[in-house]
Amino acid sequence: MTLDSIGEFGLIDRIVARLGDAAARDIVVPPGDDAAAWAVDAGLAVASVDTLAEGTHWRRDTMSFADVGWRAVATSVSDLAAMGAEAGYLLIAAELAPDVELDDVDAFSEGVAEACRHYGVRVAGGNVAGAAATSVSTTAFGSASTLDDGTAALLRRDAARPGDLVAVSGTPGAAAAGLALIEAGRAAEEDAGPLVGAHRRPPARLELGRAAVAAGVRCAIDISDGLLQDLGHVARASGVGIELDAAALPLHPAATALLDAENALELALRGGEDYELALTAPAATLGALPPAETTITTIGRVVAAHPGEVVALGGDGRPLAQPSGGWDQLRTARG
Amino acid sequence: MTLDSIGEFGLIDRIVARLGDAAARDIVVPPGDDAAAWAVDAGLAVASVDTLAEGTHWRRDTMSFADVGWRAVATSVSDLAAMGAEAGYLLIAAELAPDVELDDVDAFSEGVAEACRHYGVRVAGGNVAGAAATSVSTTAFGSASTLDDGTAALLRRDAARPGDLVAVSGTPGAAAAGLALIEAGRAAEEDAGPLVGAHRRPPARLELGRAAVAAGVRCAIDISDGLLQDLGHVARASGVGIELDAAALPLHPAATALLDAENALELALRGGEDYELALTAPAATLGALPPAETTITTIGRVVAAHPGEVVALGGDGRPLAQPSGGWDQLRTARG
Repeated sequence: MTLDSIGEFGLIDRIVARLGDAAARDIVVPPGDDAAAWAVDAGLAVASVDTLAEGTHWRRDTMSFADVGWRAVATSVSDLAAMGAEAGYLLIAAELAPDVELDDVDAFSEGVAEACRHYGVRVAGGNVAGAAATSVSTTAFGSASTLDDGTAALLRRDAARPGDLVAVSGTPGAAAAGLALIEAGRAAEEDAGPLVGAHRRPPARLELGRAAVAAGVRCAIDISDGLLQDLGHVARASGVGIELDAAALPLHPAATALLDAENALELALRGGEDYELALTAPAATLGALPPAETTITTIGRVVAAHPGEVVALGGDGRPLAQPSGGWDQLRTARG
Repeated sequence: MTLDSIGEFGLIDRIVARLGDAAARDIVVPPGDDAAAWAVDAGLAVASVDTLAEGTHWRRDTMSFADVGWRAVATSVSDLAAMGAEAGYLLIAAELAPDVELDDVDAFSEGVAEACRHYGVRVAGGNVAGAAATSVSTTAFGSASTLDDGTAALLRRDAARPGDLVAVSGTPGAAAAGLALIEAGRAAEEDAGPLVGAHRRPPARLELGRAAVAAGVRCAIDISDGLLQDLGHVARASGVGIELDAAALPLHPAATALLDAENALELALRGGEDYELALTAPAATLGALPPAETTITTIGRVVAAHPGEVVALGGDGRPLAQPSGGWDQLRTARG
């Protein structure tokens, strides 16, 4: 059986079958109609779309189709995590180039299914199309509630306030370190495993996002474009400055060991595709966060000075080289 | 200014600015955060995603980037129309190949904005990524209600019943006729305009879908993959047979005039990318449909015989050539 002989509708049936319990068969209108439909309570709908394009976000020599499936789920779920939303359903639009084979689609579907089970989300529908290049765009749907004071129980980019501390989950730069090791042919080295895994099967911090909202945190972003660049979005949206203490950054010990401390710091500041969360909140609020799936580390503070700017400070309290760059999806692919 | 110099985030700002009032700036979390959020009432969420890939669904010599923007909206809104849902918000994931220029993105944005105003929907968010090939995947979000008897006020593929009549909106085959004329270099011929327009700026039948639900219709599909193929989905999902009277098909007069009657009939049966609706319901229910934006024509009936099969009958009551084919997104692009 080939992709050409199975056809569009045969392939969709096959994908849904492979998804198993990760396909939302029990909703009001399950996969297979013009649109999916499911019951919602009154409140807030939260939705985001993200794309993984071959050549831009992954290559066949850096990750498997199963990893791409996992990442497609993680990257879109991460956007809901960064809002502190409950995650519900996914719609997956896959574009398949002529060189994609049925085995590749099967592996992709299994990666999607694994990640769906891991994050407690399900696929409600999607689309499959032939195309000149392979990519997957995943839309994630979630929900949130409105508080008694009329505000949304959500984490936003524009809610950082001077006096807040800045914290980050996990070990930023781990995914970029993993990719660097893969590209250098060093993926099999001792201790490289967790870094390579951070690139191929990144975590999304759904549990942390929800816990943060519940604790009263109101500002977060996922750092998929790099810590400095994404905190720059927070600084500009909130009209505040942000100071980071470079020495406080929780580097992954394997990144420091395998790539040296300077490179590991650089990747932690500018490397993309960590789906960790950066949060800002008063110290007491951050302190009230319950122990979660991952470590939270305080790395800096929100200030009234230099609004819109993020400054990384060295051990001497002076700025490191001027922050710039980060992961620009357009420049990286087109440049 | 070029796409490379403007960067991902500058481009997003520019797109949102071009969208004008088609960007949903007044929702709880408007475009610009990790995810969009908007208020919903208790009921049913309805959602669908569709992809337009360059080379598969459009070419630069067959339509402009503004047309692609219009079509991206129409194709996803059409899926909500086919459910009889209210349409609300869109998320647009654009992948841009290196040869796409800033003017192209501007034109695309303006086509999106025009269609949004036409259909009463707004863009709540999206994603822009560089990629090896250009495409756009649009997710449409709508809503529907649950009836007093607990069933959903929706149009489904699996709700056709023997005894129902089959009706279709508009003039199936018009979009395919328009594409055939464009490809033959005949787009400027007298009378070609409406057909070319049906390909480049297809209508989506939101108003009809909602009116059909209100009148008690419970089965519909959009015929974007071709009338026979899409009615085949209805026949299989409902476990019924469908008989079409070929002579009853409402061919576009310009298609008959410019392409001859036989070709026009073939395109009406198998041509894709008409975003018209095919409905099935008892005659009295169809008769209760109020005058809508488009003509509804009865073209056949649902039968208990040959479940899963659609048969097109000639004037002598005998089947035309065995139905097959239609628009398979995978085969067309990859074959």
